[in-house]
Amino acid sequence: MLYHVTMDVNIPRDLPADERADILAREKAYSRDLQRQGKWRHIWRVAGQYANVSILDVQDNAELHEILSGLPLFPFMEIKVTPLLRHPSAIREDDS
Amino acid sequence: MLYHVTMDVNIPRDLPADERADILAREKAYSRDLQRQGKWRHIWRVAGQYANVSILDVQDNAELHEILSGLPLFPFMEIKVTPLLRHPSAIREDDS
Amino acid sequence: MLYHVTMDVNIPRDLPADERADILAREKAYSRDLQRQGKWRHIWRVAGQYANVSILDVQDNAELHEILSGLPLFPFMEIKVTPLLRHPSAIREDDS
Amino acid sequence: MLYHVTMDVNIPRDLPADERADILAREKAYSRDLQRQGKWRHIWRVAGQYANVSILDVQDNAELHEILSGLPLFPFMEIKVTPLLRHPSAIREDDS
Amino acid sequence: MLYHVTMDVNIPRDLPADERADILAREKAYSRDLQRQGKWRHIWRVAGQYANVSILDVQDNAELHEILSGLPLFPFMEIKVTPLLRHPSAIREDDS
Amino acid sequence: MLYHVTMDVNIPRDLPADERADILAREKAYSRDLQRQGKWRHIWRVAGQYANVSILDVQDNAELHEILSGLPLFPFMEIKVTPLLRHPSAIREDDS
Amino acid sequence: MLYHVTMDVNIPRDLPADERADILAREKAYSRDLQRQGKWRHIWRVAGQYANVSILDVQDNAELHEILSGLPLFPFMEIKVTPLLRHPSAIREDDS
Amino acid sequence: MLYHVTMDVNIPRDLPADERADILAREKAYSRDLQRQGKWRHIWRVAGQYANVSILDVQDNAELHEILSGLPLFPFMEIKVTPLLRHPSAIREDDS
Amino acid sequence: MLYHVTMDVNIPRDLPADERADILAREKAYSRDLQRQGKWRHIWRVAGQYANVSILDVQDNAELHEILSGLPLFPFMEIKVTPLLRHPSAIREDDS
Amino acid sequence: MLYHVTMDVNIPRDLPADERADILAREKAYSRDLQRQGKWRHIWRVAGQYANVSILDVQDNAELHEILSGLPLFPFMEIKVTPLLRHPSAIREDDS
Repeated sequence: MLYHVTMDVNIPRDLPADERADILAREKAYSRDLQRQGKWRHIWRVAGQYANVSILDVQDNAELHEILSGLPLFPFMEIKVTPLLRHPSAIREDDS
Repeated sequence: MLYHVTMDVNIPRDLPADERADILAREKAYSRDLQRQGKWRHIWRVAGQYANVSILDVQDNAELHEILSGLPLFPFMEIKVTPLLRHPSAIREDDS
Repeated sequence: MLYHVTMDVNIPRDLPADERADILAREKAYSRDLQRQGKWRHIWRVAGQYANVSILDVQDNAELHEILSGLPLFPFMEIKVTPLLRHPSAIREDDS
Repeated sequence: MLYHVTMDVNIPRDLPADERADILAREKAYSRDLQRQGKWRHIWRVAGQYANVSILDVQDNAELHEILSGLPLFPFMEIKVTPLLRHPSAIREDDS
Repeated sequence: MLYHVTMDVNIPRDLPADERADILAREKAYSRDLQRQGKWRHIWRVAGQYANVSILDVQDNAELHEILSGLPLFPFMEIKVTPLLRHPSAIREDDS
Repeated sequence: MLYHVTMDVNIPRDLPADERADILAREKAYSRDLQRQGKWRHIWRVAGQYANVSILDVQDNAELHEILSGLPLFPFMEIKVTPLLRHPSAIREDDS
Repeated sequence: MLYHVTMDVNIPRDLPADERADILAREKAYSRDLQRQGKWRHIWRVAGQYANVSILDVQDNAELHEILSGLPLFPFMEIKVTPLLRHPSAIREDDS
Repeated sequence: MLYHVTMDVNIPRDLPADERADILAREKAYSRDLQRQGKWRHIWRVAGQYANVSILDVQDNAELHEILSGLPLFPFMEIKVTPLLRHPSAIREDDS
Repeated sequence: MLYHVTMDVNIPRDLPADERADILAREKAYSRDLQRQGKWRHIWRVAGQYANVSILDVQDNAELHEILSGLPLFPFMEIKVTPLLRHPSAIREDDS
Repeated sequence: MLYHVTMDVNIPRDLPADERADILAREKAYSRDLQRQGKWRHIWRVAGQYANVSILDVQDNAELHEILSGLPLFPFMEIKVTPLLRHPSAIREDDS
């Protein structure tokens, strides 16, 4: 089941540099691991913003929340979730 | 080059039924043709809304506008465009 | 799986009285049938508004959309969907 | 009498860890106690958010305020209250 | 129990003059009757607006909704409801 | 002359406890004194919020500002002012 | 007593041309008469908008409302009122 | 040439008292000097707010910016600029 | 003197086709004439919108308003004006 | 390819003066270098704001993001991007 998720990142300026680096490294690994599992299907950067637009493919709302609330950057993100479904005009097999 | 596009549809109630049916048929054909060409890469329905979220892959801003302003439903849509690019954490080859 | 749905109704003044009555009767029957099936778990009126807050319990985003877009009042509603899940502090067995 | 309440939580980063843990433990106990009394009828987590949607069943506006302003997390919450009533289409006996 | 209610009136230009006059006369009588009963405790005009701010004193959310949805101008009003209670600093006996 | 005033209070977390207590005590005394003078005609708590809705009865805009800017909590309040007048449907003698 | 008033005009396209001309002529005369009386102290056009910013100098909220609701264009205006007073830094004698 | 300017002031709580007093004194002198020159034509306090509404009469956009960005309180202000011109209904000679 | 102007066009569906064509032709001629005079310095289409972003170079606010209110599409446009000036980092000679 | 970019600057008060001066110097050099390359085609100051409106001419979304995210002031800016294209009424050769 697909969800459209936007994540706006705002890391506080007073976060120690090593703590920041550590969080970012864990965030990248976390995201890539979920991408490899097929659960984080797409991720794009928004031009000019420290933000991304993502498509997640998960079992249900609970798994979506587990993934999002487990993001190392979760405390510094503003997240917006929109549930998606197959569009009647879609031709691509894997867009649902 | 990728763009995130949301399209909210609001067809006026007094549009004659056959005109409406004709527009919707042409919209579907138009979208599918662009999907086959690879320019309209993804299209999803937003749950509970007469709206879609799409990813377009075009040459430049001008081609994007040509496609969007040519939509049969264009006069009845509220459209929002967000330019995208490859995310540094992305692993999928074709997400850029 | 649970979804929080708000529905704001705005029936145009020029809708013929019998068409309006027919739509409202079908809306009521439609809602009650889904309540009996357990898919429309709760529905409350918002005080002072022609609006309701509802909790739907469906299979997935696709079924949610099928139900909402099938509402006889759908063309006259502004709908907002929020995906829900069990809260870690909840004690009620059936709130998930 | 029913009220729809949304609670968005935003705990400041500089709250000492033990103070935070203490508040969260008291919040959980407080909520569960009111759930057992039947006054906090439903509580759901919002997917992707540190937020909940709740239905409270209390005597009046004053009791509602007493409960909400007594929440251990009250100083860190943005709260929105909507008064509800039985919907004319509802079939469930206990939704009023 | 007290509720703060704002009512913004927007009567469509094409409403026949006699229908309009009739609705306004019934609205005035309706409001005055409820004021006499003590249920519509205060009503003030907002300067420069076709709008009022009111304080209603009713049994519960259901009675509030019954009164508001029964307003002859209800179809032409945007209504906002805020539940109130006695303020700890209040000295006036009848403000709760 | 009547004014509708809403006051949303947001006391910073790092205000020393005794300073806070002192401000709150002075705020209460200040409000009650003006209520006794008949200038702060009504004050109600908004359910679920650290906020109030008030009706002030003063000479003019200047006196209104003098009273509001003199509130001990003024630096921690978001204030919204709406000028009121007697409503043509009002029956209560003292609502103007 | 001074009030800051913004008036945004939106005349419906289907208003007959002579009715429109008549309203505009009456609006101009109405405004000029009040300017001559000193009650409509300033009026400026907002660049690029069918809108004005005005300063009114009236007895009280009631007179302000009487003037504004009597505007021939009142049904076609969105009006916003802000009560003003003398600024402590003002040097101009007549700005209060 | 006239501009409508609103200035909302928000001085941070941790600004040392003498620095604050110094800024406020310089602000007052700065404003009065420009008023005497006829460039800051009007300034009014907004009732209930730490804010003012002003009318500036300057050569061009560049001079307007030079004046506003030179305000001692500039770093603590939210400023909104609206270009004005003579209203066709204005009778006052000096309102353009 | 430079102004940033955004124009969002919304032509009503019931405007007769020939009237629409006439307005659009006059709009184009009007714009091009002002571009040739150097007063409408830049005009760009916004991708996906029936809207433009323009830079106008005029004498003052009054000339700006005269030009904008004279646009054949003026009754069908939402216009937003922002006064500009030379940026201290600009190197281009003609950007002021 | 052209993009309209607005940049609102908000430098935190507690940034050390020399760090601030260094960032501003690097920002100016960075901007001017890109202007010389023709990639930052226009930059204007917004009157009364610590903000600019810019037109960038770059290869694609990726280059736009690389430039914007490399701004020394990037962490202290709110940026908004709008993709542009040649307007059908434009006569200037270099506005596309």
